[in-house]
Amino acid sequence: MKTVLVVAKRGSAAAESLAREIRARFPEKRLLAERSLAQTLGWEQIHDSQELAALADLVVVLGGDGTLIHAARLLRGRAVPVLGVNLGSLGFMTEVTVAECFPMLEAVFAGHFEVDRRMKLACKLYRHDQLTVDDEVLNDVVINRGAFARIVDHECLIDGHYIATFKADGVVLATPTGSTAYALAAGGPIVHPSVDCVVLAPICPHALTQRPIVVPGDRTLGIHLRNEVSDVYLTLDGQQGHPLETGDRLEVRRSENRLHLIRNPRVDYFSILRQKLRWGER
Amino acid sequence: MKTVLVVAKRGSAAAESLAREIRARFPEKRLLAERSLAQTLGWEQIHDSQELAALADLVVVLGGDGTLIHAARLLRGRAVPVLGVNLGSLGFMTEVTVAECFPMLEAVFAGHFEVDRRMKLACKLYRHDQLTVDDEVLNDVVINRGAFARIVDHECLIDGHYIATFKADGVVLATPTGSTAYALAAGGPIVHPSVDCVVLAPICPHALTQRPIVVPGDRTLGIHLRNEVSDVYLTLDGQQGHPLETGDRLEVRRSENRLHLIRNPRVDYFSILRQKLRWGER
Amino acid sequence: MKTVLVVAKRGSAAAESLAREIRARFPEKRLLAERSLAQTLGWEQIHDSQELAALADLVVVLGGDGTLIHAARLLRGRAVPVLGVNLGSLGFMTEVTVAECFPMLEAVFAGHFEVDRRMKLACKLYRHDQLTVDDEVLNDVVINRGAFARIVDHECLIDGHYIATFKADGVVLATPTGSTAYALAAGGPIVHPSVDCVVLAPICPHALTQRPIVVPGDRTLGIHLRNEVSDVYLTLDGQQGHPLETGDRLEVRRSENRLHLIRNPRVDYFSILRQKLRWGER
Amino acid sequence: MKTVLVVAKRGSAAAESLAREIRARFPEKRLLAERSLAQTLGWEQIHDSQELAALADLVVVLGGDGTLIHAARLLRGRAVPVLGVNLGSLGFMTEVTVAECFPMLEAVFAGHFEVDRRMKLACKLYRHDQLTVDDEVLNDVVINRGAFARIVDHECLIDGHYIATFKADGVVLATPTGSTAYALAAGGPIVHPSVDCVVLAPICPHALTQRPIVVPGDRTLGIHLRNEVSDVYLTLDGQQGHPLETGDRLEVRRSENRLHLIRNPRVDYFSILRQKLRWGER
Repeated sequence: MKTVLVVAKRGSAAAESLAREIRARFPEKRLLAERSLAQTLGWEQIHDSQELAALADLVVVLGGDGTLIHAARLLRGRAVPVLGVNLGSLGFMTEVTVAECFPMLEAVFAGHFEVDRRMKLACKLYRHDQLTVDDEVLNDVVINRGAFARIVDHECLIDGHYIATFKADGVVLATPTGSTAYALAAGGPIVHPSVDCVVLAPICPHALTQRPIVVPGDRTLGIHLRNEVSDVYLTLDGQQGHPLETGDRLEVRRSENRLHLIRNPRVDYFSILRQKLRWGER
Repeated sequence: MKTVLVVAKRGSAAAESLAREIRARFPEKRLLAERSLAQTLGWEQIHDSQELAALADLVVVLGGDGTLIHAARLLRGRAVPVLGVNLGSLGFMTEVTVAECFPMLEAVFAGHFEVDRRMKLACKLYRHDQLTVDDEVLNDVVINRGAFARIVDHECLIDGHYIATFKADGVVLATPTGSTAYALAAGGPIVHPSVDCVVLAPICPHALTQRPIVVPGDRTLGIHLRNEVSDVYLTLDGQQGHPLETGDRLEVRRSENRLHLIRNPRVDYFSILRQKLRWGER
Repeated sequence: MKTVLVVAKRGSAAAESLAREIRARFPEKRLLAERSLAQTLGWEQIHDSQELAALADLVVVLGGDGTLIHAARLLRGRAVPVLGVNLGSLGFMTEVTVAECFPMLEAVFAGHFEVDRRMKLACKLYRHDQLTVDDEVLNDVVINRGAFARIVDHECLIDGHYIATFKADGVVLATPTGSTAYALAAGGPIVHPSVDCVVLAPICPHALTQRPIVVPGDRTLGIHLRNEVSDVYLTLDGQQGHPLETGDRLEVRRSENRLHLIRNPRVDYFSILRQKLRWGER
Repeated sequence: MKTVLVVAKRGSAAAESLAREIRARFPEKRLLAERSLAQTLGWEQIHDSQELAALADLVVVLGGDGTLIHAARLLRGRAVPVLGVNLGSLGFMTEVTVAECFPMLEAVFAGHFEVDRRMKLACKLYRHDQLTVDDEVLNDVVINRGAFARIVDHECLIDGHYIATFKADGVVLATPTGSTAYALAAGGPIVHPSVDCVVLAPICPHALTQRPIVVPGDRTLGIHLRNEVSDVYLTLDGQQGHPLETGDRLEVRRSENRLHLIRNPRVDYFSILRQKLRWGER
């Protein structure tokens, strides 16, 4: 592990200072960062983010879950181990505290670490049968309407077969990792990240029977906006947005790529649930 | 009851034809309609909607619940009886079928009818301490974010006292009448229209403990957008929209006005719930 | 206020010691207690609980919400002010801490206090048209099956009219006060104690459409066990149990009696929700 | 497939008559049934149910899901194909109608069929470290309290590690197949039968944060009743009951056995959801 890509929360002084400390502690490593951070720190400049991703042997995230998702989007298909260091409160994916950062990095460089191979979803948007968006997500694919838009009919399919039409503000398709993010707010279940499945949850559905469902990870989910829509959007991992049009078809399936998230051995999934969501607490 | 205001679903041929039939059956009545319908039907033209509302002794709605809400907005403070005739499927407020329309109208003209006095909410928006919006609703006051907007901190107050901060996509404040509309989609409870209360329900809240609450009808609810917001909107009865800004304060309380909804004696609230929501069904 | 009835948590040493302290601080008052406590403390012995209730000008509860419900059951119809002192953690109805107890008592004796007049429900059970149980509750009337009993069909009526048949483990009918007790566990909404309503919530219903409903406080609710049942029970305020039989009819309506709960001016309802349920918390 | 075990709903005339018809149509097969049905039909008598299970090459269930679960319990570990014929309404597992029964049987005998290999859970109850119950379920393992019992603290573990203590009426551990049975009534998610997971859902939990969770199928779940309990029961697949005691420990893991359920090619899982639960319907 020679080359380390540091991905930091934008504008965070704490992240910058931690990045400098990493530089100081590991002078033998080649450290890379995205453009503006590299400039600030006076590090080697590589402007192309694909090149950055291609060079990295390890990614260190300094920030929260949002920053980690940003890093995952940078990496896209590359199976590089990612270490998530949270600068403030514990994250679902940034499990390592600043205090644990250096011992963890030393262990990682020594090869003593385990990774969670987190499922990602590949999302393709077809418009007039043309592939218009082709991307992947770690948390979720969300269809959502604008504040004044009308209710949307989301025709849902599995492996091409009709399953239901959700008349709702939107629909979330979440990985298990994403089950504690927007899908949970929409009323979806909490799913342990090792379950091989996808959560399909309507957002504010207009019928009592329109409830979330957990489907196997090896199926292809489709959403077809048959009826007229306007002011409706696709959002990928809460970061990338695309306006949708009448007739658009979305196809979501498990990606062949996974995020290789380095585990903090002192933290387990349920303790994160308890801390972050007060899950299970009295 | 000399003067009848007919409020019809826009562009509905069925509504137009029913309006003509009302004209034919009750030649002795003065019939009024909004501008475009009056033109189409060759009725007396009164362009000012406040004047229309002021003249009416009775309002007949031909359409669905959306049309009825539009009529209620026209009337605003006036306590005129409103008869809701649905053109297709039963509505929560348009309880009368086309077949029942004429017997009901005859009964109403003969003075044989009962009204439900449905609660309305008065909604005031203050921006920099200036009253910016002053309106009322029959169903709900909704704060909602645009599809790409960030989560909003909704500081909620009751009679000026802090109650909770909903970190959510939005917040619904609904009358009991509105409890089966958007508030239900947001996870709020079904509340019988005669209960004197307001439902406060967060939309897609980001914590397990942020649950809807039912508060007494005589309290003043406040929502304060203390933190920076952008792309956030206020929607009144799903029909009137206003962009919101950081610092905006919303004040919602029971209006002194009520909608006087004429009851269909052959329909009761629970049968509507069963028909429209399949509520309570196996 | 000459005569004070002290109702203490059974077997609580803390309650006993606080009762002694009340004795020492207010020598001029006539202090009463239930049999076993009166014996332990060497107080005047009045064995008949109806007589105890009839004599009291004030009731002081030392314990938690369960003890307060017990006191309310003792009082039944009597409109005596009740002061709830919690010995440990804050209760929904025992809002006064041990530290606040004496200042509060002095204020109460001086006539400086406000009461919440909490709704109670009158519950009548008819078996073969005979009135078999006639009682009232502060929190809830619960029908529940034994662990091995079959699912029960609860035919629900309002003012004698059919509303729905809940196929479920049971049904809760709760006052607003009881909305944060068992009804909440069953998925019912949180209702502020000043709303005049009853919550009807099925327990583990076997259909997605069988959801809780909030009905006006002036209606009579009925539950009819038409189908064969066995191992099914009625529980009143979680304290009084009765086995139910096929054909039993339950009639529940707002009681004319209310519990006069003395308010702690330093506590408001929403702060209790936040403390006890973490309601609204991030 | 020489030997066919017919398992029929107890006391059902329709089942008996269908059994006779199977006899008439397939004279070359050896038909077996449980004791009382075999007597009624004058079939070969094999009293020992283990022997019955051991002899069968195919099981035909005539009844509903309850009868199918009974058949699965008879078979226990044996991987014999099971055909579920519903006598009335469609079941989640009895997907074949009476009209489809003979064509399906012919196809099955000709070897033209597919099976769903449904997960089962192995459930072990330890009392004072003694294995007291050792059984398996197709739907669910349920801990539930009696109607007058106190709330139970269910300490939940995964692979021996603490996850949460559910303070609740009970707890359901369900297979995906069981997710639409009692777990759904308890508020758990709908999970497609092919997902390799277990649903853990508290029954009427007494805290807002005690929500269901979906855990991977390869973990061992434990429930420990540390605190004093009485009138608390273990129920396996809704059919087998055991009283529980303070200190009891339950261990639940995916069984090595699966139920080999013959698929009806004309039915898919989502159409069953729509028909039986009105899932996804407007």
